[in-house]
Amino acid sequence: MKQKLPEPMVLAFVEAEAAAKRGEVPVGAVIVNALGNLVAKAGNKTLELKDPTAHAEMLAIRSAAQTLGSERLIDCDLYVTLEPCAMCAAAISFARIRRVYFGSADEKMGGIENGPRFFTQPTCHHAPEVYSGIGETESQNLLREFFKTRR
Amino acid sequence: MKQKLPEPMVLAFVEAEAAAKRGEVPVGAVIVNALGNLVAKAGNKTLELKDPTAHAEMLAIRSAAQTLGSERLIDCDLYVTLEPCAMCAAAISFARIRRVYFGSADEKMGGIENGPRFFTQPTCHHAPEVYSGIGETESQNLLREFFKTRR
Repeated sequence: MKQKLPEPMVLAFVEAEAAAKRGEVPVGAVIVNALGNLVAKAGNKTLELKDPTAHAEMLAIRSAAQTLGSERLIDCDLYVTLEPCAMCAAAISFARIRRVYFGSADEKMGGIENGPRFFTQPTCHHAPEVYSGIGETESQNLLREFFKTRR
Repeated sequence: MKQKLPEPMVLAFVEAEAAAKRGEVPVGAVIVNALGNLVAKAGNKTLELKDPTAHAEMLAIRSAAQTLGSERLIDCDLYVTLEPCAMCAAAISFARIRRVYFGSADEKMGGIENGPRFFTQPTCHHAPEVYSGIGETESQNLLREFFKTRR
């Protein structure tokens, strides 16, 4: 039986779909506070902003830090449609994010369950709780559809 | 015999010292193009900008991408006073930086010679040439001095 997606993940998919429409790799991210209230949302904008660091997670973290007036997002949770890469995983750690929920794993670029598995490294000084496979099918379909139209 | 530091590394140390005066962990970064001309320079600003991603390398990469109008910094080289962390190492890879020169290694946070050694990961799709120990003593002294006054 198909599980209902948590509301922040639904919003993250809206951001991912908007990114696809802009021609960006479709990834979306949402940050909520301990009460579940929206703090920040963003889609991937590396091409639009001409910024190799402008992944959805990075933009959401930077926006949330501005909103909360602190570089530490204590008790905040991040929802993202795809497994974060090493850059984003390290930023998540620096921001002291409490929990990370992500859609499908990313064997090619991922940095949590794949590649450097950053949160297991001795140089990682804060590791969030991680929940994967939240919207896995939706995430895979979105990426497959996007790359099909590009090839 | 003490070697003369390359000019971009001297500039990176100026940025690091300015960061220390602002109360930030003293790290500075400079990006030059293939001709050796300055493209971007930055010091660590995580506290000032309330942005956990505002490491010197990230700010320099983002600034260089704006200046060059591209998210790929082809044939550009990065000079940084301390070993980049995993976040910055991944960003360096995404930006297609050609060469990285850094001062002292960072056992606690580093992501190139320490921790995830990002450029050796199967999920790393572009690895720059890396030259370490360029201004190692200066880098260690600067950090030691900074943390001494903080403890």
